[in-house]
Amino acid sequence: MGESSTQARRSPGRPRNPEAERRILDAAVEEYLERGSAGFTMDGVARRAGIGKSAVYLRWPDRDALLVESVMARSSSIEDVDTGNLRDDLVQLAANLLRFLTNPLGFATFRIAVDAVANEAYRQVSQELAGRHRNATTRVFERAHARGDAINDGVVATVVECLFGAVSMQVLTAGLDPALRTDEEILEACERIVDLLYPALHRP
Amino acid sequence: MGESSTQARRSPGRPRNPEAERRILDAAVEEYLERGSAGFTMDGVARRAGIGKSAVYLRWPDRDALLVESVMARSSSIEDVDTGNLRDDLVQLAANLLRFLTNPLGFATFRIAVDAVANEAYRQVSQELAGRHRNATTRVFERAHARGDAINDGVVATVVECLFGAVSMQVLTAGLDPALRTDEEILEACERIVDLLYPALHRP
Repeated sequence: MGESSTQARRSPGRPRNPEAERRILDAAVEEYLERGSAGFTMDGVARRAGIGKSAVYLRWPDRDALLVESVMARSSSIEDVDTGNLRDDLVQLAANLLRFLTNPLGFATFRIAVDAVANEAYRQVSQELAGRHRNATTRVFERAHARGDAINDGVVATVVECLFGAVSMQVLTAGLDPALRTDEEILEACERIVDLLYPALHRP
Repeated sequence: MGESSTQARRSPGRPRNPEAERRILDAAVEEYLERGSAGFTMDGVARRAGIGKSAVYLRWPDRDALLVESVMARSSSIEDVDTGNLRDDLVQLAANLLRFLTNPLGFATFRIAVDAVANEAYRQVSQELAGRHRNATTRVFERAHARGDAINDGVVATVVECLFGAVSMQVLTAGLDPALRTDEEILEACERIVDLLYPALHRP
């Protein structure tokens, strides 16, 4: 969330109710998943949470601030990985992203990132999301460097773009049905992509 | 559109008015671009087109049928390319996709494809879109085969997934502002991606 909404929530003297806050954030994420961004309203969230609309406005100045904070708060994003070698790190990184995106909440953040292209208010979600992915990726390559891997740094950004792009395409093509992919299928798909891209990292 | 909506529009004896139809389709696309799928209503389209709601319902049974048909009708998708060699064909294919996705209407189809992951009614758009891209891509590789290129067919699908995925990432990262990318920048970005992927096509 931006400076202003943080201040609005945390201003001294404002009575806080963590249980109500949790219910509002849960309801907000559910509303977004069901209705998308255009159908997301403070009214709808308040009704679903069983809490008065004014209590929602007490904590969040507007629907965009609530939408962004709720999705970011509930979204774990991809985690750090450290298998000891770059190829397997990249497979695990891609698999984490694929698991994340095939989870309804992870997919919601992806949808917000897509909406952000046309809507300034969501830009922060896509930037924060991109930042989290970038950080996890950077650490993987830093460790590879530390191990003495001779990586062509000039192509790393493009390799990562292809890797994360191909994973996103998987989600768009296969849909969100978790029955579609076992963890084995997820790993197989990611190995196929990484093994195609991996040689480019060591090409001079 | 599905069988049923085609029948509803084309049933014999129904008076047709191409000018009204065009205005409704234009208004529908504009509504979708402004409001997204959840905010898209028959009312809103009728109002924007300056046409009675009943006239809209005469032609389309529901909002999803209208949304899908309007976007598909207005969306040109990527065109066939034929430069004489595979590497340049892939660059042009990627550039066409990038130009398409940075155009508001093309981006709308991408957004619908993302919405389709969670909404059956839009599945047909994403399938038709994927089909168009697949066809253009298939022809490029067929011509390469005909010229005698020794392509490793086992990796073609993954290369295409990486290529189209990386192009989609470009759009999500850079946004839709056309000022962001000249045609030179578009070509440069696509050459960078293709030149990274291209060697994989000839690896045994």
